[in-house]
Amino acid sequence: MAVPSPEVVRAAQKASTDMADRETPFLYDEWYVAAFTDEVGRTLLRRTILDRRIVFYRTEAGEAVALADRCAHRSYPLSAGLLDGDTIVCGYHGFRYDVAGDCIEVPSAAKCPRSIGVKRFPLVEQGDLVWIWMGEGDATEPDLHKLPVVSFLTSDDWTRSKGYFHHPGNYVSLHENLLDLTHLSYVHAKSFGTPDYARAPFKTEMKDGYFKIRRSVVPTSLPPVWGDPTGLSGIATAARIATSEFLSPAFHLVSTSFYDDARPEEDRMVFSIHTAHLPTPETHGSTHYFIVHGRDFALADEAVTETMHRQLFTAFQEDVDAMSLLEDTLEHTPPSEMYEISVASDAPSIGMRQYIRRRAAAAAGAA
Amino acid sequence: MAVPSPEVVRAAQKASTDMADRETPFLYDEWYVAAFTDEVGRTLLRRTILDRRIVFYRTEAGEAVALADRCAHRSYPLSAGLLDGDTIVCGYHGFRYDVAGDCIEVPSAAKCPRSIGVKRFPLVEQGDLVWIWMGEGDATEPDLHKLPVVSFLTSDDWTRSKGYFHHPGNYVSLHENLLDLTHLSYVHAKSFGTPDYARAPFKTEMKDGYFKIRRSVVPTSLPPVWGDPTGLSGIATAARIATSEFLSPAFHLVSTSFYDDARPEEDRMVFSIHTAHLPTPETHGSTHYFIVHGRDFALADEAVTETMHRQLFTAFQEDVDAMSLLEDTLEHTPPSEMYEISVASDAPSIGMRQYIRRRAAAAAGAA
Amino acid sequence: MAVPSPEVVRAAQKASTDMADRETPFLYDEWYVAAFTDEVGRTLLRRTILDRRIVFYRTEAGEAVALADRCAHRSYPLSAGLLDGDTIVCGYHGFRYDVAGDCIEVPSAAKCPRSIGVKRFPLVEQGDLVWIWMGEGDATEPDLHKLPVVSFLTSDDWTRSKGYFHHPGNYVSLHENLLDLTHLSYVHAKSFGTPDYARAPFKTEMKDGYFKIRRSVVPTSLPPVWGDPTGLSGIATAARIATSEFLSPAFHLVSTSFYDDARPEEDRMVFSIHTAHLPTPETHGSTHYFIVHGRDFALADEAVTETMHRQLFTAFQEDVDAMSLLEDTLEHTPPSEMYEISVASDAPSIGMRQYIRRRAAAAAGAA
Repeated sequence: MAVPSPEVVRAAQKASTDMADRETPFLYDEWYVAAFTDEVGRTLLRRTILDRRIVFYRTEAGEAVALADRCAHRSYPLSAGLLDGDTIVCGYHGFRYDVAGDCIEVPSAAKCPRSIGVKRFPLVEQGDLVWIWMGEGDATEPDLHKLPVVSFLTSDDWTRSKGYFHHPGNYVSLHENLLDLTHLSYVHAKSFGTPDYARAPFKTEMKDGYFKIRRSVVPTSLPPVWGDPTGLSGIATAARIATSEFLSPAFHLVSTSFYDDARPEEDRMVFSIHTAHLPTPETHGSTHYFIVHGRDFALADEAVTETMHRQLFTAFQEDVDAMSLLEDTLEHTPPSEMYEISVASDAPSIGMRQYIRRRAAAAAGAA
Repeated sequence: MAVPSPEVVRAAQKASTDMADRETPFLYDEWYVAAFTDEVGRTLLRRTILDRRIVFYRTEAGEAVALADRCAHRSYPLSAGLLDGDTIVCGYHGFRYDVAGDCIEVPSAAKCPRSIGVKRFPLVEQGDLVWIWMGEGDATEPDLHKLPVVSFLTSDDWTRSKGYFHHPGNYVSLHENLLDLTHLSYVHAKSFGTPDYARAPFKTEMKDGYFKIRRSVVPTSLPPVWGDPTGLSGIATAARIATSEFLSPAFHLVSTSFYDDARPEEDRMVFSIHTAHLPTPETHGSTHYFIVHGRDFALADEAVTETMHRQLFTAFQEDVDAMSLLEDTLEHTPPSEMYEISVASDAPSIGMRQYIRRRAAAAAGAA
Repeated sequence: MAVPSPEVVRAAQKASTDMADRETPFLYDEWYVAAFTDEVGRTLLRRTILDRRIVFYRTEAGEAVALADRCAHRSYPLSAGLLDGDTIVCGYHGFRYDVAGDCIEVPSAAKCPRSIGVKRFPLVEQGDLVWIWMGEGDATEPDLHKLPVVSFLTSDDWTRSKGYFHHPGNYVSLHENLLDLTHLSYVHAKSFGTPDYARAPFKTEMKDGYFKIRRSVVPTSLPPVWGDPTGLSGIATAARIATSEFLSPAFHLVSTSFYDDARPEEDRMVFSIHTAHLPTPETHGSTHYFIVHGRDFALADEAVTETMHRQLFTAFQEDVDAMSLLEDTLEHTPPSEMYEISVASDAPSIGMRQYIRRRAAAAAGAA
């Protein structure tokens, strides 16, 4: 056994110190997906986000509301109370809160004391998604310019389907998984991966807070999930151009184009799919993994939507299973034994992890 | 969102620092209910009390015995051994202990070494209850004057029923729950609470180690659990006078009187119930919750006993469920986010929690 | 209650400070049983040993291989990958490792970087057992002279049967259990113990790393498990001479001889059994408990093998159950309450625990 030598292990450990891992504090100054819009209604919805418990509901006028899920009096979860009009009545002693989080009634007191309240979190709805802002700033004036806007999520030119996984692992490894699609040849060997994926040429792009890898698998044969609806099945000259983009800690966009590379460029039909991977940390060991998928072809064909959805979410389940296994390993590796050795295609992933770590350190320094 | 302002949160956090919470060390110098008398017999009973494991049994002459449940030799639980006459034989190497906790036989040694033993805890039986003393002092001369004596627990003028909950939460919040019965309008909205409860006038009384709140709900309508057996159902002029008394960390007495307020005082029939709420900490996150309920009317009517018992313990289950939810919230609230804002009717509860905290601090200082 | 006095408790606590317990660091410089030989084959086997996760397989030529079960790249468990010929292909990004633990292929890189690898652990096969060395030293030249060699494990003069328990407790208490067979009268009262066992005379022998106790139960009656196959059932003059030997932290040998003590020595038929108790720590709270049992009589009688195996492993299950109860008690005893009082027959056990503690301290000092 020649490797790994103690020097290699030490160097790898040193390199990892500035990369985010599952212990890295959360970044609160971001918009995260809190729920699908159809999850928030006239029933109190309880959800933990970035280690904070939050209760969601919709007012009679239809506005989505998010409040800290802990009565300011004796900490009873408001989500166990009653939604009465636009107010929540605590299920313990009846304290009543309005949409601003202000307590407006204390039944045992003739006059409601001032200054009792719980935090309200700004929400923005965009297509199927409810985004939440849990950082600093005025709740009535959320910092909208930080909201990632990606047109396929709302545009009529795309047909969408959506899904959710409660992932028993940290969100950083989900991002890392997406930034190196060579895993398609292994994790997804039985679903939408092909063996040539891992060896295909790639280009990377990295700037502060934006990390991209583009992999061109040409020529290739497409698996049925893509080949069938595009009519590109059965040819060995297909092209599959996949781009992963880390847009924010809450948003990872994967875009793929398919065409027949044997045809001249001006005569090609190019089919595109987009997948918004939207990991919202629940705790350091669990993640709300929202996914919205869209395509720009066969827009009205519901059978295609259904077949693709089923096959895609089978594959995404493979990611969740693999990242769960990884989480379990990380959790049980003694720090002294832990090391990671990187290769060239890890550059965007390393950049992304360094970026998260840097921001977490800056937030800790500012606090 | 105007509230809670950082100043309000800070002030609330400061006010909480001298109030007991789920982390507060236990008070050992008290009598706690260890078991119902019919639970202790000729079979070894294992129970954890105040984080200590204890084995209980009854001698052939009928005396209840409590010993530390850990053999002095190699820590095997004595409760996994055999009860042989009045002695316990350890199930690992056969060390034999008498009722005093003294080891009187070591099979592998011809002569039993002196000074091997386990701690014996004083017990006192009172009606249906076995009380245990886990504090300092001579086990053969327990400090009986600290034993709470409440006559309804043994008197023939009362008909009693009893029950037990293994409560997955700390005992302090059980006491706090009982000291503010405005929760009846919310936690017990579907059982024995009524909406007017929360707004009824109250009086409080507080002295060192004794905390009381008395709430007069007059006029009111009684729920069936009280209305039916007292014949006060269907009238809107009923009176319901409820008193909560914290007698010790192990004993909370709730007494309620019912009568028809429309009748002149000299012509009234007054019906009384008492409930002894007896929370014995198992661990910081779990409590043995013993309850004895009594009434001074329809003494011999077993159908009333049965109906009231069923309805009452359904309501007490609501307390346990609510306090479990609360425990779960407290456990998951980061200390920096935690605050409690109090109102006027919380005075006895605050006093009670300050008292427990003060005693715990004093015990820690003395140790 | 006279005992235990605070002085006795303090003295007992002081005496325990140099004895190994469940918190004592593992001893890595030893051979431990990793698996039975028939468990290691052409399927990847994952097992945690001494808190390290390891993947086992057998090469096409039949050699057993053990590698650290964590890809050097991004920590994915190799056991979740594929066995391809004699190599493992990681299931995440396809890194390929050879039997030496060297990474020999990175699909996304044209040329495999040097110095990527995972630790290989030396294995030695001996009869039914695969032994692993997890300590320091060159993996290609394992320190074979430390391997316990006990001939009955491989000799044709013995008939063997084997079994495995996943024991939810620490390995130290398993050794201690075996070094004081007076427990047979209690833990095994219903299986192969007899009441006279606990009071039988014993001799001990202790030297560095070797601890022995020999107990002579003469005259006695044998339980059916021994009496039936030896023909010594039904006589009251049987002898049962049992020897426990701690050979290493990984190997405890129990040897017993049976004969009719009423016959003159030169005219006796002596029947012998050996049991190799092979506890391999998984974590501090769990142990792989391998057991190989052998006899030197009725060698070819499969009915005897089957009957003895069934009865023996029923008894060993009693040990596992008892030690689980003990573990649970130790886990829940506050350090300030913990004490152990020893008697004469505990001498080898104390010596053994001091030896393990001393070695752990020396290893910590050397690191």
